[in-house]
Amino acid sequence: MDAVSIIAAKRDGQEIPEDAVRDLVLGYATQEVPDYQMSAFLMAGCLRGFSSAETFALTDAMLASGETVDLSALDGPTVDKHSTGGVGDGTTLIVAPLAAELGMQIVKLSGRGLGHTGGTLDKLEAIPGMRTDLSAEELIAQVGRIGLAVCASTADLVPADRAMYALRDVTATVADTALIASSIMSKKLAGGAAFILLDVKVGSGAFMADLDSARELARVCVTLGARAQRATGAMITDMSQPLADMIGNAIEVREAIETLRDQRRGRLLELCLGLVGHLAVLSGVAPDAETGYARAERALQSGAGLERLRRLVEAQGGDPRVIDDPTLLPQPPVICPVRAEQDGWLATVDTQAIGHAAAALGAGRQRKDDVIDPAVGIELPTKIGDRVQRGSNIGCILAGDSDAAGRAARAVLEALSWSEEPVKAPPLIHDVIQPSG
Amino acid sequence: MDAVSIIAAKRDGQEIPEDAVRDLVLGYATQEVPDYQMSAFLMAGCLRGFSSAETFALTDAMLASGETVDLSALDGPTVDKHSTGGVGDGTTLIVAPLAAELGMQIVKLSGRGLGHTGGTLDKLEAIPGMRTDLSAEELIAQVGRIGLAVCASTADLVPADRAMYALRDVTATVADTALIASSIMSKKLAGGAAFILLDVKVGSGAFMADLDSARELARVCVTLGARAQRATGAMITDMSQPLADMIGNAIEVREAIETLRDQRRGRLLELCLGLVGHLAVLSGVAPDAETGYARAERALQSGAGLERLRRLVEAQGGDPRVIDDPTLLPQPPVICPVRAEQDGWLATVDTQAIGHAAAALGAGRQRKDDVIDPAVGIELPTKIGDRVQRGSNIGCILAGDSDAAGRAARAVLEALSWSEEPVKAPPLIHDVIQPSG
Repeated sequence: MDAVSIIAAKRDGQEIPEDAVRDLVLGYATQEVPDYQMSAFLMAGCLRGFSSAETFALTDAMLASGETVDLSALDGPTVDKHSTGGVGDGTTLIVAPLAAELGMQIVKLSGRGLGHTGGTLDKLEAIPGMRTDLSAEELIAQVGRIGLAVCASTADLVPADRAMYALRDVTATVADTALIASSIMSKKLAGGAAFILLDVKVGSGAFMADLDSARELARVCVTLGARAQRATGAMITDMSQPLADMIGNAIEVREAIETLRDQRRGRLLELCLGLVGHLAVLSGVAPDAETGYARAERALQSGAGLERLRRLVEAQGGDPRVIDDPTLLPQPPVICPVRAEQDGWLATVDTQAIGHAAAALGAGRQRKDDVIDPAVGIELPTKIGDRVQRGSNIGCILAGDSDAAGRAARAVLEALSWSEEPVKAPPLIHDVIQPSG
Repeated sequence: MDAVSIIAAKRDGQEIPEDAVRDLVLGYATQEVPDYQMSAFLMAGCLRGFSSAETFALTDAMLASGETVDLSALDGPTVDKHSTGGVGDGTTLIVAPLAAELGMQIVKLSGRGLGHTGGTLDKLEAIPGMRTDLSAEELIAQVGRIGLAVCASTADLVPADRAMYALRDVTATVADTALIASSIMSKKLAGGAAFILLDVKVGSGAFMADLDSARELARVCVTLGARAQRATGAMITDMSQPLADMIGNAIEVREAIETLRDQRRGRLLELCLGLVGHLAVLSGVAPDAETGYARAERALQSGAGLERLRRLVEAQGGDPRVIDDPTLLPQPPVICPVRAEQDGWLATVDTQAIGHAAAALGAGRQRKDDVIDPAVGIELPTKIGDRVQRGSNIGCILAGDSDAAGRAARAVLEALSWSEEPVKAPPLIHDVIQPSG
């Protein structure tokens, strides 16, 4: 079956046989199938949809396009966690140390930010000296020694997904459940962890705007995991506002340190403890999520979590003194407050707009080759349901210059809507989906 | 509006504003918009459809991407005729000389064959020495002198269409009425003729398989012509079997010569006279189609049409002796008969399969860069409704070697189905659509 016939069949709504999907994806990875044929196929798929069998075939083909990491040398349950992306979504730097304290082996393959979303690698690299490009051998050795590693997916893993993701981004073919699920799960399966927990975000800062599509994405991912004999669970969590108080890179690292020091409590910590609790059940280190949650909380209060983060930073070449003195992290030239322009309760947040405002400051990428400024970002501790008074500080902008700060402050204010009546805080965790099969 | 937003809007079924269509098409012509974005846009359009306004905008943008030919220096009505493509569809070499005899100025911009369809330029180039790459100046001077020219659209005309057509061919985005209509009409409008007649083919050898879609294509083209102040008409004609007795290049030239010599009558001549009749009405050189038809018939019988073809061949550098001695055209090494394998009436023809069999012999192109063998082809004078006896000759194969001839004979026999009852010949002309507006 040639590429044009496969595209025509998808255009006409036919199901593509497994071997044809495989030929197309592997051909794309080796550049035998050109970009313009793959983009036509992806657009036809976005409009016609992909069947379960096609989604399986896409995932298998992407996995087959590269290497996979073999973690069998590690003792203890190997665990990966993946967030579908959001704003102020810095759970990894808190979850990974606490989960390692509970006896899990954390093999966290992370990505970079694009558009309105932040990326764990960018945040880590805000720590002076920190490396994220571990080889498979370094990754395994480090996890064996200290129980955790957070690093980039290497170029050898799922090259087809890497190429297809870049193409989807520039051809308006990102928003398809089967394409998103096969992209996520091919990377997770290639990473080798036996237990996978997905944090599927829903709301104004997420790719999934409504609960139904988030549940559908979670369901497809969990099925793809089960099919590959990896116990995969999912949590559907809130992204109707930035999760953390901080949105940026150095400031999100600072917030993680302050949280592990038990100096800062809020929705970010609450979700992190919930994620560790469910990871603990999934991987069998705790009998139930509540026990896992309680043990994570104790690891936090004892300072063991913070010490585990220090070892992670040290192991990957970062300056461990930032753990004691976060002012060693990059600092912005300008910090200016954002003040409320009216009395009221915070009612809604255009979270995507907040993410774009942070990216415009330099904390994220508008385009793939933009350079990140680790020092800048937005501090927005005000959450939905909080009451403010006109003129009070609701956050602040960390910027390269005062013009940029002024634009960001304006964008933040425009992204918020206020109510004259009390507003209820949105639920943090909408749903937990257990492994299937 | 950036390319990704335009693609996303089309994917979501929105109508694209005129200036955005223009930016995309002109950007594609200058390679600022890459192939992969255009193919995603085209696929989204194939599945979502294009509105009238979008079809107008596509046509205008393709026209604006290049030069246009100014025919105002010519006296008399300037006329172009376009067939949507078929098998054995060699009307131009008969229609153009006869129409010129009736006082029209024939400015025929032609294309090459691809897939199962033949192309006028390939046929012309079977005549030794014949040039088809006239400049706009040569074209105008020649039409002024002898009343007709048949040549390639130059690279300066509608470069966006040229690029988009090549892309559509390899991304399964050919079969969309708006894309086909805007491609045809942008070329015809750039060619400069004041009167345009479309021959929209329908049936097993045509891009339009049913009468409704052929009528829809004709209607859109006629509207596009009227919008540009060009009187544009259309005929919907039969392609349920090869039009001519011959399918190839040199042999189609031979058939045209024999037809203009009044040695060969059949469906090809009948359609040619009909086309000249309607061209005559459209361009105002005859009061009605019947008068035009009768005058074309007289121009044929007097030999004036044949002489006009001789002048065309001479003017474009071809060897005019072929008019008197068609054996000077390229001859094949092997000619072998195709014999009926049963008694019966010819019931149906898989015309596309016949076209592909001719292309496989070397008469057409499977891929864009295939080289044509002008000598080879298929002679198939047996038409639907004809009765044959087992063992009788129903046609013959002109081939490079006997293996290729054997394969082609098998393919021809497999493309034909037979009835034990008499079968009616299909109508030749389904419909005539008058200029609108």
